[in-house]
Amino acid sequence: MISLDDIRSAATVIAPHVVRTPLLPFGPGWLKPESLQPIGAFKLRGALNALARLENRANGVVAYSSGNHAQAVAFAARLHGVPAAIVMPSNTPAVKIEATKALGAEVFIVGITERVERAEALVAERGAALIPPFDHPDVIAGQGTIGLEILEDLPDVQAVVVPMSGGGLISGVATAIKTLRPDVRVIGAEPALAADIADSLHRGELTRWDPVERAQTAADALRDEPSALTWEHISKLVDDVITVSEEEIFDAMAQLARGARLITEPSGAVAVAAQAKLGGGVAVVSGGNVDPALLVRVLRT
Amino acid sequence: MISLDDIRSAATVIAPHVVRTPLLPFGPGWLKPESLQPIGAFKLRGALNALARLENRANGVVAYSSGNHAQAVAFAARLHGVPAAIVMPSNTPAVKIEATKALGAEVFIVGITERVERAEALVAERGAALIPPFDHPDVIAGQGTIGLEILEDLPDVQAVVVPMSGGGLISGVATAIKTLRPDVRVIGAEPALAADIADSLHRGELTRWDPVERAQTAADALRDEPSALTWEHISKLVDDVITVSEEEIFDAMAQLARGARLITEPSGAVAVAAQAKLGGGVAVVSGGNVDPALLVRVLRT
Repeated sequence: MISLDDIRSAATVIAPHVVRTPLLPFGPGWLKPESLQPIGAFKLRGALNALARLENRANGVVAYSSGNHAQAVAFAARLHGVPAAIVMPSNTPAVKIEATKALGAEVFIVGITERVERAEALVAERGAALIPPFDHPDVIAGQGTIGLEILEDLPDVQAVVVPMSGGGLISGVATAIKTLRPDVRVIGAEPALAADIADSLHRGELTRWDPVERAQTAADALRDEPSALTWEHISKLVDDVITVSEEEIFDAMAQLARGARLITEPSGAVAVAAQAKLGGGVAVVSGGNVDPALLVRVLRT
Repeated sequence: MISLDDIRSAATVIAPHVVRTPLLPFGPGWLKPESLQPIGAFKLRGALNALARLENRANGVVAYSSGNHAQAVAFAARLHGVPAAIVMPSNTPAVKIEATKALGAEVFIVGITERVERAEALVAERGAALIPPFDHPDVIAGQGTIGLEILEDLPDVQAVVVPMSGGGLISGVATAIKTLRPDVRVIGAEPALAADIADSLHRGELTRWDPVERAQTAADALRDEPSALTWEHISKLVDDVITVSEEEIFDAMAQLARGARLITEPSGAVAVAAQAKLGGGVAVVSGGNVDPALLVRVLRT
């Protein structure tokens, strides 16, 4: 498992390149708006930390991602002047594919279950280094910097609500918070349609859901499942899980637009939907890369 | 004219109640997103500073405003537990009227040229204190805290672009910046349809435009004109003005939504439209209280 020192060290590495997001008051709680990062999502933190620590990056980097990790790796690779090849599933929103290409990455579109295989093939062909979306200690440590910032800005925080999918974000945030402040509750948030971690925590063991089933949620960045590494962090550190319906996710997007003037993607609003049920705490708004047509639909209802 | 000490003192007074907004990288420049303040606009800074320094507030406060100052005074009054009466012109967007009522203020809707008169009548009737939207040293000093924060966060800043209307915001920001860093350019931004300050600066004297004419811009928070006090600051401290068309304002709103995941009102995007013409610098995004129907129209084009 990663340590507080790993996260503190990541904070130093990434500080010049990420936005120090503020906490925004929102109803009875606060928002941590990671949608304001240059690529529109928290993923930049982990990708920057992982790429900076990579010893062998001369042949470039490879990543597979439904979108935000793709942009994060493309951004970090451009910063370090190395080529990036990104494998994206065919159900990725067009806005995320275009943004990744705009950052100079080479993009490969594949079926939703084939992305790991294709990424590994690219690594083998090119001698490039894989930057996994969550299953890596440097990636987890990078995401954990969010937890440090929350504690700095709100010393009397009582609960932090974090969206879960692959589990990299909550693993890092929970490590930071539980090490420094074991009394603060760390609560995961999941779409009910992809609630495999809630299911796993209730059963007491990692439980797999069919990826095609999980892909039904509009929260397209939350269709992954934990690795052994992230499950170890989650099962030891996370206090509880709140699941939310698709309607609650869209309602939270509308509330964020009207009440906080933030544009969010469905995945970015999941912790806010959970926060509404909890009645307080800090919700991590994980991303804002939404297709404009979906945003318009949400704003009109 | 106000001093740097007035602004530093305001910063201490308002710090517990405002968001310390970050600078967000945006194209070749940066954004200062004041749309993230709890009331969705920078106006909170000035209103909080003015209300905190008011000696006679037992009978409540009165303000006239096309919207954002209204919410700012309502918010500050609620914080200090005093009643607020707000006079708003009949062409104020519904979203701003509703938000002001939701903050507990009593709202009076009047014709667009009658608001000052009505506010003064309320002051006389109630023995309440008027908090003007820009024509007051404490209000100007509060807005100036934005300038201090920009210099703290970006010591090598070269230009700051600030929307102008009544001139309170740019008077405060320019005082902070020109006192500490006379080499940094302070550039005003105005809608071409309400470019009375650009006109005044070119003529070398304060020039009035017909209020009904100025009201044609969609930038509803920029339909005011300077007072003698703000004109003194502007004429002495502002380096240049950039005017923008209505189309350029709507384009900037769309760019902010897609590229920075920020919801802005037309007035909030005016400095960003000017920044695009300048090719860099820090643009102050002054507010985000947009009617959802207008936002949808901008996102669809």
